[in-house]
Amino acid sequence: MKAAVIGSGAWGTAFAKVLGDAGSEVTMRARREQVAAEIRDQHGNEGSLPGIRLSKRITATTDLAEAVDGAELIAIAVPSQTLRANLADWAGFFPKDATVVSLMKGIELGTLKRMSEVIVDTAGVAADRVVVVSGPNLAPEIAAEQPTATVVACLDEDRARQVQHALATPYFRPYTSDDVLGCELGGAVKNVIALAYGMASAIGLGDNTKASLITRGLAETSRLGVALGADPLTFAGLAGLGDLVASCSSRLSRNRTFGEHLGRGESLEQAQVATRQTAEGVKSCLSIRDLARAHGVEMPIVEQVEKVCHEGADPRVAVKLLMTREMKPE
Amino acid sequence: MKAAVIGSGAWGTAFAKVLGDAGSEVTMRARREQVAAEIRDQHGNEGSLPGIRLSKRITATTDLAEAVDGAELIAIAVPSQTLRANLADWAGFFPKDATVVSLMKGIELGTLKRMSEVIVDTAGVAADRVVVVSGPNLAPEIAAEQPTATVVACLDEDRARQVQHALATPYFRPYTSDDVLGCELGGAVKNVIALAYGMASAIGLGDNTKASLITRGLAETSRLGVALGADPLTFAGLAGLGDLVASCSSRLSRNRTFGEHLGRGESLEQAQVATRQTAEGVKSCLSIRDLARAHGVEMPIVEQVEKVCHEGADPRVAVKLLMTREMKPE
Repeated sequence: MKAAVIGSGAWGTAFAKVLGDAGSEVTMRARREQVAAEIRDQHGNEGSLPGIRLSKRITATTDLAEAVDGAELIAIAVPSQTLRANLADWAGFFPKDATVVSLMKGIELGTLKRMSEVIVDTAGVAADRVVVVSGPNLAPEIAAEQPTATVVACLDEDRARQVQHALATPYFRPYTSDDVLGCELGGAVKNVIALAYGMASAIGLGDNTKASLITRGLAETSRLGVALGADPLTFAGLAGLGDLVASCSSRLSRNRTFGEHLGRGESLEQAQVATRQTAEGVKSCLSIRDLARAHGVEMPIVEQVEKVCHEGADPRVAVKLLMTREMKPE
Repeated sequence: MKAAVIGSGAWGTAFAKVLGDAGSEVTMRARREQVAAEIRDQHGNEGSLPGIRLSKRITATTDLAEAVDGAELIAIAVPSQTLRANLADWAGFFPKDATVVSLMKGIELGTLKRMSEVIVDTAGVAADRVVVVSGPNLAPEIAAEQPTATVVACLDEDRARQVQHALATPYFRPYTSDDVLGCELGGAVKNVIALAYGMASAIGLGDNTKASLITRGLAETSRLGVALGADPLTFAGLAGLGDLVASCSSRLSRNRTFGEHLGRGESLEQAQVATRQTAEGVKSCLSIRDLARAHGVEMPIVEQVEKVCHEGADPRVAVKLLMTREMKPE
């Protein structure tokens, strides 16, 4: 298969590696020529995945049109809130029948749309050509070929199976699903719960409390999902519970790490400087809160994370409030 | 309320502390006079909970009849496989209307009965007088007054609420449930999954894999529960997911720690010497496997843990088999 990956961050690069190792010819699109040249000539991307060697079937360019030319599969891994503006420039170059794979985990501010919806809206891609890949997928571990399972979701089951085959390697095991909505919500909300988990960790709360936070976090994710029409079982699976546990328990998780900085009393700006990025959950907590309110769903953890990130609330007060007052009976 | 706690291990002692802090007069029953005297005279139990001070409302004795005399609530925290034999000696002393609280997480070998069923069978206690307390409840954290939530399950909802009130303290938050079966299964199976998690950790598997193991472990727990008539939502709650995550992620978890020893290639005997005990899951994996087979439920993780513990299987082979071949589509 001929594949393109747009975005050369850790997840885009790890995904390109999987595609290459599974036998596809892959062209990555990087924004900076230095990164493209490093991938092309040195088969590595030290800035995103230090120490990882990429297959010679993977090349790279800064030219979007060149990257997607003739691609049967186009995977997109760019920051969620930049997707719409980018797609407006890119979509004209996408081959008409290509499968578009979203690797992004966010909800668009303002429109409250999922990434697959933004792709359908903006790129004129039919909904049954959009595939979502989501699961307990910390990119550095995939790149290191640690055994990893994931979910490949598409409204068109045949297309999900095609992508499943295009990704199957000894270290990466994809399972198919038709619940695109549930997989996307699971991925977006877990970023916010992982921020709360990081705050709780930094504050020094124990494993009993943190296990309750994961349990309550998954419960509020499921409530939102069910209100929007997702399959509740998706949240008990790899793209729900699996992704949430991986993001909360791993030191490799950006959102957890960002939450730890906030929990130590740093401002949003200080945490951004320290981690050299903004975690996805910092923006998504706003849109997820709005989505929940629009559908009359209570999401106390998301509400508190939003207050800490954007309204100056003290994380110690916010987390303790969650642990003592906000928890409802089972 | 006048309460008795039978068993002076970490969980029995922490539970007595909660009852005492919530206002009850508590008599603990310890097997050894040295431990009883330490609790009675020095308000501590260094062997089980180092550094913890107990309320002066807590006393202790080695005399079972004295401990339960006049008790409205009798909590039992002894090793699961010893319960039946012990109860045969004790039950005649239990006040007729006492609530009996099971703090045990196991399935009896041979009979395949849950602990509440053993209590009903052997002590002649009506099923609606038996209460199960289960959740993400690592005893050392509760004793240190880390905020902790739990589930109090009873067929009789009024009795569940009475126990809820008898346990409510600023650091311990009980929620009620009527799903005794689901809470007991969640607690028993998680010990076995935590053994597998410990093995996976020791072998060096990553956070993606370990998150998948938790996800698959909860799925097989739910399958067994549904086959036996439990409420599937129980497994998504504190006594299912919450307890499982706490036991897998915490270094305070005995079953996880025991699994780590096995994963490093130690024999069952070596692990027992190193940890100075046998983790509950080592025995329960046999009875849970038998229970699953009797009901036609597939539990691949439990099967592999049993093979490592009792049939000499190599944990590296067993865990890799789980991660690569045994995982079914979502």
